Amino acid sequence: MATSSRVLASLRRVSVPRQASPLLQRFQPAIRVRWAGTTSATSEPHQPNENGTVSSSPAPAKAIKLTSETYPELQRNSKFAKLSQDHVKYFQELLGSESAVVDGLSKDASEDIEPFNSDWMRKYRGQTKLVLKPQSTQEVSSILEYCNKNRLAVVPQGGNTGLVGGSVPVFDEIVINLQKMNKIRAFDEVSGILVADAGVILEVADNFLAEKNHIFPLDLGAKGSCQIGGNVSTNAGGLRLLRYGSLHGNVLGIEAVLPDGTIMNDLSTLRKNNTGYDLKQLFIGGEGTIGIITAISIICPQRSEAINVAYFGLESYEQVQKAFSEAKTQLSEILSAFELMDGRSQKIVNTVTGKRFPLEGEYPFYCLIETSGSNTDHDSEKLQNFLESVMESSIVSDGVLAQDQTQIQDLWAYREGISECLGHWGGVYKYDLSLPISDLYELVNDVRDRLIEAGVVGDDDSFPAVDVVGYGHMGDANLHLNVAVRRYDKKVEKLLEPFVYEWVQRKNGSISAEHGLGIAKKAYIGYSRDETMIRLMKQIKNLYDPNGIMNPYKYI
Amino acid sequence: MATSSRVLASLRRVSVPRQASPLLQRFQPAIRVRWAGTTSATSEPHQPNENGTVSSSPAPAKAIKLTSETYPELQRNSKFAKLSQDHVKYFQELLGSESAVVDGLSKDASEDIEPFNSDWMRKYRGQTKLVLKPQSTQEVSSILEYCNKNRLAVVPQGGNTGLVGGSVPVFDEIVINLQKMNKIRAFDEVSGILVADAGVILEVADNFLAEKNHIFPLDLGAKGSCQIGGNVSTNAGGLRLLRYGSLHGNVLGIEAVLPDGTIMNDLSTLRKNNTGYDLKQLFIGGEGTIGIITAISIICPQRSEAINVAYFGLESYEQVQKAFSEAKTQLSEILSAFELMDGRSQKIVNTVTGKRFPLEGEYPFYCLIETSGSNTDHDSEKLQNFLESVMESSIVSDGVLAQDQTQIQDLWAYREGISECLGHWGGVYKYDLSLPISDLYELVNDVRDRLIEAGVVGDDDSFPAVDVVGYGHMGDANLHLNVAVRRYDKKVEKLLEPFVYEWVQRKNGSISAEHGLGIAKKAYIGYSRDETMIRLMKQIKNLYDPNGIMNPYKYI
Repeated sequence: MATSSRVLASLRRVSVPRQASPLLQRFQPAIRVRWAGTTSATSEPHQPNENGTVSSSPAPAKAIKLTSETYPELQRNSKFAKLSQDHVKYFQELLGSESAVVDGLSKDASEDIEPFNSDWMRKYRGQTKLVLKPQSTQEVSSILEYCNKNRLAVVPQGGNTGLVGGSVPVFDEIVINLQKMNKIRAFDEVSGILVADAGVILEVADNFLAEKNHIFPLDLGAKGSCQIGGNVSTNAGGLRLLRYGSLHGNVLGIEAVLPDGTIMNDLSTLRKNNTGYDLKQLFIGGEGTIGIITAISIICPQRSEAINVAYFGLESYEQVQKAFSEAKTQLSEILSAFELMDGRSQKIVNTVTGKRFPLEGEYPFYCLIETSGSNTDHDSEKLQNFLESVMESSIVSDGVLAQDQTQIQDLWAYREGISECLGHWGGVYKYDLSLPISDLYELVNDVRDRLIEAGVVGDDDSFPAVDVVGYGHMGDANLHLNVAVRRYDKKVEKLLEPFVYEWVQRKNGSISAEHGLGIAKKAYIGYSRDETMIRLMKQIKNLYDPNGIMNPYKYI
Repeated sequence: MATSSRVLASLRRVSVPRQASPLLQRFQPAIRVRWAGTTSATSEPHQPNENGTVSSSPAPAKAIKLTSETYPELQRNSKFAKLSQDHVKYFQELLGSESAVVDGLSKDASEDIEPFNSDWMRKYRGQTKLVLKPQSTQEVSSILEYCNKNRLAVVPQGGNTGLVGGSVPVFDEIVINLQKMNKIRAFDEVSGILVADAGVILEVADNFLAEKNHIFPLDLGAKGSCQIGGNVSTNAGGLRLLRYGSLHGNVLGIEAVLPDGTIMNDLSTLRKNNTGYDLKQLFIGGEGTIGIITAISIICPQRSEAINVAYFGLESYEQVQKAFSEAKTQLSEILSAFELMDGRSQKIVNTVTGKRFPLEGEYPFYCLIETSGSNTDHDSEKLQNFLESVMESSIVSDGVLAQDQTQIQDLWAYREGISECLGHWGGVYKYDLSLPISDLYELVNDVRDRLIEAGVVGDDDSFPAVDVVGYGHMGDANLHLNVAVRRYDKKVEKLLEPFVYEWVQRKNGSISAEHGLGIAKKAYIGYSRDETMIRLMKQIKNLYDPNGIMNPYKYI
């Protein structure tokens, strides 16, 4: 896209002039941030960021504290059977020994069972002795029917890129990993409807669709590892929700296996189908607690020809809100992302990566705006008009516009790299929250003030906390509140909780916007849901899984 | 929007020239079709078309055959109590006598109970003696708790514009009409999230939003009468689904009262909230069988500045499919409707209304395309390029483009008027189907051939059937197959069913795309859902409504 002289003129007029920064240069950012393995299409568990950007070198799993030690109040439920040789024999006969991997029996190191026991954040570690890798819906059905009859607890597992410990065992639950169910079943080019196995990796699905000029209506950093069945099970939000809407609207059908082995064939490929309760919706965000999704059908939009990305510096959160309103009005149908990053988060990316800032000056807030449309000229003109208006009205203080695909990736890296960079000092307390937009950033200030006042934030090793930052999907009112720490510390934890949850509750927010509950948020659901809702949810759980074998100790 | 000379030139070149029709004229359609009461904002039941265009003169309800006579196999379930004076007294004390209307007791003719007993199609007529009009969620709760304890069956009722008999009683079920719960509770201009009572009329909600530069993400012909709670209960599809997606994606929260009086407060105003099973989804399309929706929150997009409508004639269904593919590619993010009308449907509108055709020639197929975008010039250019390409490649044979709001309405009237005009001869057999797009119209031909072969279609009164037509929301693969008849006739019925349902089943289609099941489709769900799905749905019904008091004799 050609840089418009009108926009340049506008920028020149309203932004603060700096000798070292000719304006044209500001439109050609030199940053070249690269995150290891971002697009590696492996099906084994790896280390993603808050949206799952994958790191290439997982730390040895043995170093991770057992979940049962972290949560000493959790006891293995004695109603569950312990794995016996008979059980193992049954599964190995059903699946073959390559697809029923027993701890310690494998000669091949890559088949080590440990990666299936622990999560990428190194926060959770289970003690399973058995990983099953079914290759068909019928195999999943046979597995669950057997487990249900024999009271063997199970954990469904996709790409294991979750952030709340939902996809790894707590004790000795059997892992049922979907990686071998990885076929695209059908695609209709006229309607854009895709039918695929649950174990298809998101990026594989999106690449397949790209060849057909379509796009998967969900995108997130972990796309190289996460599986579409896992995405649907956690109702992943990610980067395209603002434009394409939620999975509750886009998923048209689900094939799932219930705990008793029943195959629920609700794999409709119809955009409209009003024939009874929409049961599949319970599995979207059900986190594998009432069944295992084995396939989905989903409506995929046409791929946009024109993608534009701009990156702004702004002087206040008030200005950020104004910019968002203007973007909604002026960019309207082509606005595909409006991301918020506070100044501290961008400083940390800058510090950790050593790459230069996209902008010359420093600002308390930054935004990343993406547009996707069918006509490059039209989109450029809309974006240009938008840029002019927000610069002229001083809503935005400075900005750059990506000139090519590389620069688009560079700007996105300053947003997507935050989570990984925050881990640089050792650990991160992470909160994934929904809040009314007007109150969204106030929480970050309140938490930072609280921690500074308590004397736990500082520049040297005597302070446990490094900094408190806020960023997220502003377009969806989704804040990621993160506290970077040098070490996990009880004092910090007590300052954070229940303070953060109570704050969210007062604003009628959600304690889990897109990450789900898993084991991490299970205890806190009461801050976002009342007792009646929790009772009704438990009713559903008991209806589908009366023996409680599905993903126990988690969710609600 | 100015008519482009480029488009004119293109039209001149590829369309068949006709002396009587200067091209410019074809761009200024003279039709002025008006449907009585289309936008009347009344809360009493009226007569809408297939999407509910409302007619002003409902026929006397007494003339309608009792549903219990039409379905002699249905017997009143003796487990339900009969209405007693004590019951009436309780309700009149709870709500006041104006909001608890007993048959025959009212002096005011407008309070006659009959309109609440019968549907606008004059197909269904129940025998209730009591209509309740609660004014608050708490009142709904008290009503249901009492009914559940006393085994009194109930029918939730919104605007009573449904097409499958779902909102009127079969026997003496008490009608709970939501018309007095009609307040808009809140609207957030930054996020576009609306919270409103279930009884708010769709058009009232949309007019409110228009003032705030937003739009309700659902539109249908009945908007002047239908209520948003009823829309959500039937998971209405309508005219904007192609652009804004389904209610399962747009509805963010629901407040509902369960049969035992429990108030389910799931009225979240958050775009993302992953804290447990998404129970509200069961109420979207639940048709009032597991609870009564009392309020919804919904995300509403910004209103588009530019609306364009074009109307085409095409030579074959192959060409229609090509035009749809081209529209998806070229109009992409601004395409907001792609409607199909066959030649016979348009001829009937022409015959009944006496208004001139939008086009000079006659074609076997017509399409209506609507675009909605934020920039008039951009949209016009996109549409112009699209028109050029489909005219040049002879996909489209002739076309007109609306020049102003009046012409937009005139073109839409030729689509929206079909259903009402079909009723001109006395009755209509209506099917609302989802089918794979490639097979969609084949069914209409098959049914027409079948009826002609059997000698039931003809031009004079000796033939029961007038014609078989097909039209619908092509963009959603949603076909309305309609058979206009002079009288309802057993022979015609036997030719139609199960033939139509078996045809749909073979193509894995849906026997109810957007109208729901109600009483009309209850017996046929097996053509679209397997036994497992039906069993699982019944499980949900039994879970929420163990006494079966909610909207009995219908749904599944």
